[in-house]
Amino acid sequence: MSKDPLVVFTPSGKRGRFPVGTPVLTAARQLGVDLDSVCGGRGICSKCQVAPGFGDFSKHGIHSDPSALSEWTTVEQAYHDKRGLKPGRRMSCQAQILGDLLVDVPETSQVHRQVVRKAASARVIEMDPATRLYYIEVTEPDMHEPTGDLERVRRALKEQWGIEGATIGLPLLTRLQTVLRKGGWKVTVALHKRAAEAEPQITAVWPGLHETGIFGLAIDLGSTTVAAHLTNLDTGEVVASSGIMNPQIRFGEDLMSRVSYAMMNPGGDAEMTAAVREAISTLVSEIAEEAKIDPAQILETVFVCNPVMHHLLLGIDPVELGQAPFALATSSAMELDAATLGLTTLPASSQVYILPCIAGHVGADCAAVALSEEPGKSEDMVLIVDVGTNAEILLGDTSRVLACSSPTGPAFEGAQISSGQRAAPGAIEAIRIDPETKEPRFRIIGSKFWSDEPGFAKAVARTGITGICGSGIIEAVAEMRIAGVLDPKGLIGSAEQTGSARCIADGRTHSYVIHDGTADGGPLITVTQGDIRAIQLAKSALYAGARLLMDERGVDKVDRVVLAGAFGAHISPLHAMVLGMIPDVPLDKVTSAGNTAGTGARIALCNLAARRQIEAEVHRITKVETAIEPRFQEHFVAANAIPHASDPFPELRGQVTLPEVSFNTGGGGDSGRRRRRRG
Amino acid sequence: MSKDPLVVFTPSGKRGRFPVGTPVLTAARQLGVDLDSVCGGRGICSKCQVAPGFGDFSKHGIHSDPSALSEWTTVEQAYHDKRGLKPGRRMSCQAQILGDLLVDVPETSQVHRQVVRKAASARVIEMDPATRLYYIEVTEPDMHEPTGDLERVRRALKEQWGIEGATIGLPLLTRLQTVLRKGGWKVTVALHKRAAEAEPQITAVWPGLHETGIFGLAIDLGSTTVAAHLTNLDTGEVVASSGIMNPQIRFGEDLMSRVSYAMMNPGGDAEMTAAVREAISTLVSEIAEEAKIDPAQILETVFVCNPVMHHLLLGIDPVELGQAPFALATSSAMELDAATLGLTTLPASSQVYILPCIAGHVGADCAAVALSEEPGKSEDMVLIVDVGTNAEILLGDTSRVLACSSPTGPAFEGAQISSGQRAAPGAIEAIRIDPETKEPRFRIIGSKFWSDEPGFAKAVARTGITGICGSGIIEAVAEMRIAGVLDPKGLIGSAEQTGSARCIADGRTHSYVIHDGTADGGPLITVTQGDIRAIQLAKSALYAGARLLMDERGVDKVDRVVLAGAFGAHISPLHAMVLGMIPDVPLDKVTSAGNTAGTGARIALCNLAARRQIEAEVHRITKVETAIEPRFQEHFVAANAIPHASDPFPELRGQVTLPEVSFNTGGGGDSGRRRRRRG
Repeated sequence: MSKDPLVVFTPSGKRGRFPVGTPVLTAARQLGVDLDSVCGGRGICSKCQVAPGFGDFSKHGIHSDPSALSEWTTVEQAYHDKRGLKPGRRMSCQAQILGDLLVDVPETSQVHRQVVRKAASARVIEMDPATRLYYIEVTEPDMHEPTGDLERVRRALKEQWGIEGATIGLPLLTRLQTVLRKGGWKVTVALHKRAAEAEPQITAVWPGLHETGIFGLAIDLGSTTVAAHLTNLDTGEVVASSGIMNPQIRFGEDLMSRVSYAMMNPGGDAEMTAAVREAISTLVSEIAEEAKIDPAQILETVFVCNPVMHHLLLGIDPVELGQAPFALATSSAMELDAATLGLTTLPASSQVYILPCIAGHVGADCAAVALSEEPGKSEDMVLIVDVGTNAEILLGDTSRVLACSSPTGPAFEGAQISSGQRAAPGAIEAIRIDPETKEPRFRIIGSKFWSDEPGFAKAVARTGITGICGSGIIEAVAEMRIAGVLDPKGLIGSAEQTGSARCIADGRTHSYVIHDGTADGGPLITVTQGDIRAIQLAKSALYAGARLLMDERGVDKVDRVVLAGAFGAHISPLHAMVLGMIPDVPLDKVTSAGNTAGTGARIALCNLAARRQIEAEVHRITKVETAIEPRFQEHFVAANAIPHASDPFPELRGQVTLPEVSFNTGGGGDSGRRRRRRG
Repeated sequence: MSKDPLVVFTPSGKRGRFPVGTPVLTAARQLGVDLDSVCGGRGICSKCQVAPGFGDFSKHGIHSDPSALSEWTTVEQAYHDKRGLKPGRRMSCQAQILGDLLVDVPETSQVHRQVVRKAASARVIEMDPATRLYYIEVTEPDMHEPTGDLERVRRALKEQWGIEGATIGLPLLTRLQTVLRKGGWKVTVALHKRAAEAEPQITAVWPGLHETGIFGLAIDLGSTTVAAHLTNLDTGEVVASSGIMNPQIRFGEDLMSRVSYAMMNPGGDAEMTAAVREAISTLVSEIAEEAKIDPAQILETVFVCNPVMHHLLLGIDPVELGQAPFALATSSAMELDAATLGLTTLPASSQVYILPCIAGHVGADCAAVALSEEPGKSEDMVLIVDVGTNAEILLGDTSRVLACSSPTGPAFEGAQISSGQRAAPGAIEAIRIDPETKEPRFRIIGSKFWSDEPGFAKAVARTGITGICGSGIIEAVAEMRIAGVLDPKGLIGSAEQTGSARCIADGRTHSYVIHDGTADGGPLITVTQGDIRAIQLAKSALYAGARLLMDERGVDKVDRVVLAGAFGAHISPLHAMVLGMIPDVPLDKVTSAGNTAGTGARIALCNLAARRQIEAEVHRITKVETAIEPRFQEHFVAANAIPHASDPFPELRGQVTLPEVSFNTGGGGDSGRRRRRRG
C-alpha cells in the first residue's frame, strides 16, 4: 500500500500525510498551522491563500511537483477576476493535495502574524486580538420548527465553526433580524473572547462577507492630552493617530486640582466624567473620519490612564484618591462595553478593556509601561521613567520590580515656565550656551538650523520664535549650569557675577535672556529664577522617586535608564543628567523608548494573552508610596541642587565640567518653598 | 473513648455526631441542613434561630436534655433586648452542643422554605431565589499593600463565605466606596447567581447588616394591562399587587395593530418601547410606595408576556412577528439588568429575567402557564385555556404537550361590546334569565344581592348599574340561549318570536334589554346582535384553537379543562360550555386556576431551578400555528354556532336543555363577516 502524500508547511515546518484530495486548508487545520479563514472554506474571503513551492527542498526532505496540487478551480478564477490573487498564490480551501507538497503560508495569511513596533527597541507584537470575524450561513426560519433568529445564528456558529455558547448584547440583538435578512441569511459575525476559554460574545454582525476590516483603538488617556491610535485588528497596522486636549483641564490643571474640584462641588465628578467621555467620543469620530472607516468597524478599545483619570472615566468619584490611604475603587482590569462607558460614537457592543491599576497613585498607565518595557524580564537593573505631569517610575530586574509615581508637575511640559509653551512650531527645543562667552544658540521646532546658522532667519520667518518647550527648558537650565551662569543651588548670577549682559535683573533675582524679539514685536524669552525653581521642584520629585525605589530595592546605582513618555523621546540624556533628573549612569545607557504607555495599550489591544500577562504581572510589582514616605522628603530636599547636593555623579563628571560657582548673596533663595501637587 | 454528642435536626431528620462545643449552626452546615444565615455566624442577623426540643424522642431514638445546650449568651441577650427572640428559640451560631440534642429548624429559618400559592390548586413554591444576602466584614485599605476596595470585598466573600469570582456592574461599582465607608467596612451584599454553578454578581450593597428585606417583582405584561406582584424574596410572600393599563393601547388596541403601527411609522417600535418601559417604571414606583419599601430593595424582576410585547419591551422591532414565518429575534430566556432594559426606577444593577418564548405566536406568557400548570406532568389529558385578548392554549399530558395561541379579540374582556365595560363596581357580572318569563335577574360587582332581592336597590345606590363586564356578557349570551331568546346560529329573536317585550328592534336586528335605567338618567343596558357576533367570533377562535390541538394530538375529547387568566377565574363553567368556548367535559372537570401566567412568573422569581426547568420544557412543547392552518378556519366556522354546529356536547346536554329555536328570517345574518386580528 502506497503512503498518503506528505505535506510540509513553511515557515512553521509542520508536516503530515493526508489522503489524495484533501484541501490544503483542511490539512493545515489538522496540523495546527497558523492559517487564517473568515469564510470557513467557502472560497469567498481569500484569507487562506497560500504559496505552494515547487522543486527540491532538501532542508525539508521533500520534492514538490506542480502536479501535487489540483488544478486552478472556477472558484479561484472567479475570485481572481473580481479581486485579483497574487501570482503563485492558491486558495487553500480550494486547492487539493494530490502528491508530496511544500506550502508556504505568507505572513498576510497568518492569524498570529507579528507586528514590529516602530520604536527603538525591536519588540514585536504577536497578533492575537480578542475579536475575530466568522462568516456563517444561517438556516432560514421555519414556522413549523420555531426557533429564534439568534438561536439559528448560534447553531450556525456551532455547526460551521465549532463555536458554542455565543452570547449577544441587547443593542446588537435589536438589529440582528434586519442584518440577517439583508444578507440573505449569510452574515459575518465578530466574536469577542475575554479569554481563550471564555464564552464568545457577538459584538458585530454584517450582511454577507465583511471585507472592509475591523479596528481597535489604543487610547492613552492623560491628564493633559488624550492620544488615540487606530489599529487594524487583522494586520496590527496603525492606520491613524490623533489626539485632543483633555477637557477636564478647565476643572483643574493637575490631578489633585480635579480631585479637589470633585470634593468641593457636588456632582463635580460627574461633570468631569461627562466631559472626558464626550471628548473621547469626539476623538473616535475624528480618527474614524481621518482613516475613512465607519466607526461601526471599531470593535475594541484599550485604555491606559492614571488612577484619577481611570476613576473619572468610569464615573467613580476620585475623592478617595486624594487622601491617604489612597484606596482605589478597584484595581482589577475592567472589561465592559462602549455603551456602559457612555462612549456614544462607538457601537454599543464595542468592547472596552482598561488595564489594571497597581495602586492608588500607580495606575493603568504604569501597568502599560510595564507591559511595554517588561522590566521584570530585564537581566540588568533598569530604571524606567515615564515623564509627564505625573511621573511613573519603575525599577527592577528579573528578580523584583518596584513602582511609584511622583508629582513632577507640568514644568517639564513647558507649563508654569515664564516663556514656556507646548511643543509646537516656533518653540525653542534645543539650546547650547558657550561656556566662554555665555552666548546662547538654539533651534526651534520646525527648523533644522541653529540660530547662529545662515538659514535660520529665513526658516523661522513663518512661525517666529514663540517660547520654550519642555525639552528646551531642560537644556536651557542644564546649559546655564555648564556655562556657569547658574550655581549648584539654582541661583542665576547677576551680570557682574557672571560677566554676561544676558543675566539681567528681575526684581530681587536675575533672569537669563535667551532671545530678545521685542525689537520686531516678538517676545523676550528668558529663563527666570522662578523657572529655575519650578524645574528644580520637578526634577527633585523625579530623582527622589527613583532614589526611593533604589532604597527599597537596596541598590545605590542602576545599570540603565529608559526615558519613556512622548516627552521622554525628546530629552537629551546629557542635559537630563546635568539637571539631576535621573541617577548617574553612563550616557550610552540612557535610552528613549517613546510613548511606552501607548505601546502597552497597543500590545493589549492586539494580543489577548498580553492582557492576562499584565493582570498577573501587576500583582508582582511592589508599589512604593511617595506621598507619605519621610525618606521621599529627604531625597527631595537633597535633589534640589543641580545636579545634586550629595550624590557625586561620577559618570556625568567624566563627560562634562560643572563650574563650582556660587551666587548666594546671603538672601537665602526660596528653595524651601515646596509646591507638591500631583499632576 | 466516649462518643461525641449526637445531634438530630428536624424536620429534615439529618443527624450526626459533633465534638462538645460545636456551634449548632456549624453542625447544621456540615450536615447540609437547610438553615439560613446572613451574617455568617456573627450573632447579629438572627436568621439562624432554632428551637431546641427537650425530652425523649423515640422516633429519632434520642433523649435531649436542656443541659445539652450551652447557656444563653450575652450576644443572644443583646439581640433579644433589641429585637426580641421568640420563647424557646436560640441563635444557632451562639448555642453550642454539649450533649445529645434534638433541634427543630422553624420554617422561618429555612432558606428553602415552601410557599403555598393562594389559588385553588395546592401547588407549593420552594424558595430558592437567585439573589441572596451576605453580611461581610471587609479589610480596610492599606497604602502599603495596595488593593482596590472591590478586591477586598471579593476577598471577604471568599474568606467569610467561600464564594469566589464575584463580579460587579459599573453602576454599583461607582457607589461601592461610599457604602463601605458608611458601613465602617461592614456591609451586606446581595449576590445574584444566574445558575448554581455561575459566577455570582454583586447587585446591591448596604452599609452594615441590611435588615429591611429584598424584593422581587413578577410582572405579567399583557397587551391591555400590566400586572405586578411585589414579592419578599426571603419569605416568598406577596406584599403588594398593582396594575396599570398598557399605554401602548394608544398605538393599537390589539397586537397586530401595534405591529402595523411599527411597520407604517418609522421609529414607531421605539415609541412603543419607550411607552411601555416608562409605564413599567411608574408601576415600580407605585408598588414600592404602596408596600412602603425603597425601590432600591427590588433586586429581581421576572417578566412574562406574549411575543409582540416581549420584542417591544426589549426594543426589538416586532415587524417579523406580523408575517409568516413569524420569526422571533430570540426564543431564549433573557437575563439582563434593569439599566439595559431602561427601567429607570429600578436600581441599575437589579436583575431582570424574561421567560423563554415557544414560537412567534406562543410567548413567554404561555411558557409561564406551562410552568405554573405543568401539563407535561398531568396523567390525564388536560386542556389549559388562558383567556385574554389573545388566548394561550395548551393541551397534553405526560407524553406530549402542544401549544397554540388564538386571536380571540377583546370581547371576553367586555371591550367591543355595546354595554361592555371593565370589571369594576357597577358592572353586571352574573345574570340569570327565567326560561318561562324570559325576565332577567343579575348581580353587579360590589354587591352580593341579586337584582330581584330586597337589599339590591340600596346596595347599588352608590355605584349605579353601569354596564356588563366580561363574565357578565358570557353569562348573558349563554342564558339567552338557554331561555330561547337566542337561536343556535346566534340570532336574537323579535318580541313576537320570543314572546318577550325585552327583545326590542334595533335597526334590522334585535337587542335583548337586561336593564333599563334611563328613567333615572342611567344607561339602557342591552345585548345587541352585534355583541352576539363579537362573542361568537371570540369563542369560535378559542374553540377552534383547542380543536386544532386535539387534532394534532389525535384525540376527540379531553379529560379536564383548566380556565386560566385573571378573567378565567370569573367564568362560570356551565355558561362557558353553553357558549361553546371549551370542549364538552363533565362540569366538575372544569377548574379555574387564576392568573397562571402571573403564577408562573412568581415561581420563576422565587426559584432558580424553575427557570432552568421551563427553559428545558419549552423545547419539548410542540407549537401549532393557527394563523396559516386551513383546518383552523374550518374549526372556526363550525364553532360559530352556539354551542356548536356539529359537535354534540353530550355532557352539557345532560345538565341543561337548549331549546331548538330558529329566528332566521331569510336575511342570512352576518356570520360570514370575519374579523381576525391578534390582540
